[in-house]
Amino acid sequence: MAPISSPKAVLIDLAGVLHTGDDALPGAVRALDRLRASGLPLRFLTNTTRTPSNILFAKLQRMGFTLAASEIQTAALAARTLVRSRGLRPLWLIHPDIAEEMGESDANPDVVVLGDMGTHFTYPILNHAFRLLMQGVPLMAMARNRYFMEPEGLSLDMGAFVAGLEYSAGIKAEITGKPAPAFFAAALAELGVAAADAVLIGDDLSDDIGGAQAAGIPGILVRTGKFRAGDDQHPDIRPAAVYDDFAAAVAGLLS
Amino acid sequence: MAPISSPKAVLIDLAGVLHTGDDALPGAVRALDRLRASGLPLRFLTNTTRTPSNILFAKLQRMGFTLAASEIQTAALAARTLVRSRGLRPLWLIHPDIAEEMGESDANPDVVVLGDMGTHFTYPILNHAFRLLMQGVPLMAMARNRYFMEPEGLSLDMGAFVAGLEYSAGIKAEITGKPAPAFFAAALAELGVAAADAVLIGDDLSDDIGGAQAAGIPGILVRTGKFRAGDDQHPDIRPAAVYDDFAAAVAGLLS
Repeated sequence: MAPISSPKAVLIDLAGVLHTGDDALPGAVRALDRLRASGLPLRFLTNTTRTPSNILFAKLQRMGFTLAASEIQTAALAARTLVRSRGLRPLWLIHPDIAEEMGESDANPDVVVLGDMGTHFTYPILNHAFRLLMQGVPLMAMARNRYFMEPEGLSLDMGAFVAGLEYSAGIKAEITGKPAPAFFAAALAELGVAAADAVLIGDDLSDDIGGAQAAGIPGILVRTGKFRAGDDQHPDIRPAAVYDDFAAAVAGLLS
Repeated sequence: MAPISSPKAVLIDLAGVLHTGDDALPGAVRALDRLRASGLPLRFLTNTTRTPSNILFAKLQRMGFTLAASEIQTAALAARTLVRSRGLRPLWLIHPDIAEEMGESDANPDVVVLGDMGTHFTYPILNHAFRLLMQGVPLMAMARNRYFMEPEGLSLDMGAFVAGLEYSAGIKAEITGKPAPAFFAAALAELGVAAADAVLIGDDLSDDIGGAQAAGIPGILVRTGKFRAGDDQHPDIRPAAVYDDFAAAVAGLLS
């Protein structure tokens, strides 16, 4: 793993790093200001697909974070870009809140695109997806995260439904968000920075740190959000650095 | 694989072999009568956990099948037996139709027992299970079937939800029905027949045939129910015999 002194760009996960639910994590707003003052270009990479990017942006602003809408890269927008660039006819199985952002489903789909439907996941919807997959329609999934941190505790993330459909249909989904190498590569391409010159800060050992490092980007794990005891002692995924929270990570990066 | 001439007992899967939905498969009623006339002891092994065993029994009788309630062995009853014999405090996450048969859930569970909830699978229920698993409560699942045949086509079975919870919680479920070796062993013990002297007839390549053969029981695959083209050419699971349907399998066994 490359050293993480003087990176040329910083990729930052959102939920669990900057905030939990609607609350900024302690010290995170000031730490982001400090990071901005250093002049480093930033990108915010999120697998959250229950919220449209404009609402997410407004929410982060309301918490006090200084950022531009164009700096946020979501797994949902990555899916939309992929679907459009390939000229596919999508069936969007997504949270109703992002329906407008994704656009219409096709009556005769040639791809099933799954997002985090949260409480809108139902057996009839999953069975509908399953039957299309069994007919050979491919599955695109915005993320395969195992769980995420909510104010009341860890919650089941959409990865469970991706894994379940993969198991029953005997197929593999194409992931559009983290840890897909293309998702990280898109951010780096926009910033014009090589992977080894960037750094990622995240709370998800496998999808943030493992994904970034598989793409050649040093990953900094923070002990907030979904971090669980032992994540910093994983046998296979070894973060380039581990800090107690985002503020400490920024202090470490700028020291 | 042992030859299947002159078996001493026959284990028979139900859905997809004898019937689909509420309809007996063509020739199945007469074939079962013919098998009975041979005097071979029989057991009906089912992973269906949406229907209590007494209703299942009545349904099979109504279709014209000759059988005794005591010959039916269900994955749900196997779960109840395991829970009771170990003195566990279960949280039953099951179809409401089998709630009475399984009994009360414990307010302070030390095991999560999952059945096929069908349309009753919801995000809040799965998230509740997930949180218990993350606290170290083990998961017992009645089955891990990938799909089953309904009159309107293949449908997603509970295996998708087992696989999803296993993935997100990073655990492995204990299966009480097929393909658990103990499930087959319980039937053989009751019949007093050695594994190699019995034979199983099923439509599920992995859970019927693969499971039986892993327990030393020759498996006969039928091309009805959830059978799909290619199941009889699988690289790893090779049935002892393949027949077009239950009637043909019985004819083959008795020839």
